[in-house]
Amino acid sequence: MKIYGHKQAPNPRRVRIFLAEKGVSVPTEEVDIFARDNRKPPFLAKNPLGGIPVLELDDGTCIAESVAICRYLEGLHPKPALFGETPLQEATIEMWNRRLELVLFQSIGMVWIHGHPLTKALLKQIPENVAPARARAAEFFALLDAELAKRPFIAGPSYSIADVTALCAIDFGRFIEVTPDASLAHLARWHAAVSARPSAGA
Amino acid sequence: MKIYGHKQAPNPRRVRIFLAEKGVSVPTEEVDIFARDNRKPPFLAKNPLGGIPVLELDDGTCIAESVAICRYLEGLHPKPALFGETPLQEATIEMWNRRLELVLFQSIGMVWIHGHPLTKALLKQIPENVAPARARAAEFFALLDAELAKRPFIAGPSYSIADVTALCAIDFGRFIEVTPDASLAHLARWHAAVSARPSAGA
Repeated sequence: MKIYGHKQAPNPRRVRIFLAEKGVSVPTEEVDIFARDNRKPPFLAKNPLGGIPVLELDDGTCIAESVAICRYLEGLHPKPALFGETPLQEATIEMWNRRLELVLFQSIGMVWIHGHPLTKALLKQIPENVAPARARAAEFFALLDAELAKRPFIAGPSYSIADVTALCAIDFGRFIEVTPDASLAHLARWHAAVSARPSAGA
Repeated sequence: MKIYGHKQAPNPRRVRIFLAEKGVSVPTEEVDIFARDNRKPPFLAKNPLGGIPVLELDDGTCIAESVAICRYLEGLHPKPALFGETPLQEATIEMWNRRLELVLFQSIGMVWIHGHPLTKALLKQIPENVAPARARAAEFFALLDAELAKRPFIAGPSYSIADVTALCAIDFGRFIEVTPDASLAHLARWHAAVSARPSAGA
């Protein structure tokens, strides 16, 4: 088993943190995304969409999409359960993980794609997308703060994949200056707590 | 247990099809999304993001996000398994379901949000987003066609939640004129087959 990833990209980090929480190690091969190696034929045979990370099994089967990789790894290493154990836990974690991806990660992605100098050379930016995406991220940060006033972690009393997703989204957002307002104390408390876990450095 | 939904919206349809495939029935209450009832306080207490569908349990607990609702229902009614049974099946279905959502559903959503007369009154459109979203959907349709040349359903030999997602995305796309090219015969064969299942009319 082998992971194709990249040290600075947010989605491979999600799998690294997940593995660290499980106490499991998988060899990783770095893909040179700045040379666009992930958009060229040898890699496209592993993932036709060109995204990283990809998990390659020993028989050559490839699993793309960070959450799909994590779900596979959860099947092999069920404890600690990071996708929940009861139907209600599973649904609650899925709900939050999806909200984080479909609203927060997407908004941060829009700022990155349409507003960052590094991406300008690679694709056609539509700068009008940046302000609404920033506004949507700010609203979502406020929602997260209100939720984190009620419980220690994003989807309940225990750390889950939703916390992994949120941490990676927020830290990537910081890199492109999409940051939670300093007044959001519950979100700040949560961020300090999850960042202090050894997995955050994976 | 009760579902808040809407007959014409694509995400509530996903849950209806899923339930029909399970042979399970859950009472539904229609939310008047054209009157924006889903964006007003009574509903926002059920889902702060205002999206539909929402599943409300008998104790008042609310689960939002169609896939989270489906996962909860899969826990209660495991057969037929629409999220897979082995770790590899689960990961493959998750991978395809995510690709469908993050690329196809998002692209169709961009055309709907930024290009449709019905949404123009509700939000600030950025018409420049429409052409790239249409191009991305067209590319993804071609990818799906190539994959469906290899197997009967999107994520393997059996019908799964990925087929539900794809059907609802494609049929919603048709409504806004984002349609697969007629030359994509494998995709057309698949679409005819899944549309012929009784669940498609749910």
